[in-house]
Amino acid sequence: MQQEGLLLVISGPSGAGKGTVCKALLQEVKDLRYSVSVTTRKPRAGEQHGVNYFFTSVEEFEEMIKNDQLLEWAKVYDNYYGTPKDFVIETIKSGQDVILEIDVNGAKQIFKNFPNGVFIFLLPPSMEELCNRIYKRGTETKDIIEKRLAAAQGEIEQLENYNYVVLNDEVENAVNKIKAIIIAEKCKVNRNKVLKEEYLK
Amino acid sequence: MQQEGLLLVISGPSGAGKGTVCKALLQEVKDLRYSVSVTTRKPRAGEQHGVNYFFTSVEEFEEMIKNDQLLEWAKVYDNYYGTPKDFVIETIKSGQDVILEIDVNGAKQIFKNFPNGVFIFLLPPSMEELCNRIYKRGTETKDIIEKRLAAAQGEIEQLENYNYVVLNDEVENAVNKIKAIIIAEKCKVNRNKVLKEEYLK
Repeated sequence: MQQEGLLLVISGPSGAGKGTVCKALLQEVKDLRYSVSVTTRKPRAGEQHGVNYFFTSVEEFEEMIKNDQLLEWAKVYDNYYGTPKDFVIETIKSGQDVILEIDVNGAKQIFKNFPNGVFIFLLPPSMEELCNRIYKRGTETKDIIEKRLAAAQGEIEQLENYNYVVLNDEVENAVNKIKAIIIAEKCKVNRNKVLKEEYLK
Repeated sequence: MQQEGLLLVISGPSGAGKGTVCKALLQEVKDLRYSVSVTTRKPRAGEQHGVNYFFTSVEEFEEMIKNDQLLEWAKVYDNYYGTPKDFVIETIKSGQDVILEIDVNGAKQIFKNFPNGVFIFLLPPSMEELCNRIYKRGTETKDIIEKRLAAAQGEIEQLENYNYVVLNDEVENAVNKIKAIIIAEKCKVNRNKVLKEEYLK
């Protein structure tokens, strides 16, 4: 009685803390597999192929698009970013859960390709706190920060498309909620259709 | 931002362990309120009015049916059993969660009256184990046991109407799963519609 793994899509506005929450989650839930993105941008210092990203050429990436090998993809400035389909599908079929950290536009593409996914919208505790977090990074100009906040508002409008909303007030709280969501989703009747047959035979 | 409480309906075949699981759950989750049934049967030794049941007369019970004051009711042999609607609705509106332990026929009536409820089907680990559990009670004749097993099969057929199926292999496991379901349900986007408005205002 092998149950398929879950595809957990962790999304939300920039500054919601997706990266931190996913990292903590992966440390606590040992059998969760992280979906590594593929990109055409150059590796930064310390980044490893197959760990942070799969680094690839523009030609190879465009070939992947053509062959429908990506669950979603986007071109940001001059660089492509995408989610390899095979890894996600094979891992899930093997019964393992996959976590995918992705922006709201990426998630939108996955809704269509993967309606059975578990879509979690991570929300910073307040708009003020989101401001603070983006400011604190110190890496952005005032102009970019304002654009990000405007974008965040538009992204929050898309909440309805998600299954769950998790307030990231404290990383530990958010992680515990996502852990509960994983357990609950595995108990969903529509993920346990085999169970009834096994039981009644 | 007051979120409504959940109506948790714990159902499943006789012998699945509904009573034991609910009792353990109520001990662990302090703010969970138990929905006390109303009945026309006479109190047994040790049973307290308002704790085990609300004991009432046939006339009063039939008045409650007539006035639509019951979420569900049934007549078993000569006795009425039912779930008072007011308690459930008021408790939920106050933001507290209510747990309702009920047989499959009762749950069926609640699907219609309360589609927003969280319907959990408790399943014994196997049909063999269900047999053992009913036998071990020692209170039933062979004839009744066989009727119960046949009934259990029919009840398991109704699994599709539920949201979750929880295997009661160990009480502790079942309780942990239900605790996770409670947390996950509170993160559901459709239970947090206020959040978006609060956030964007």
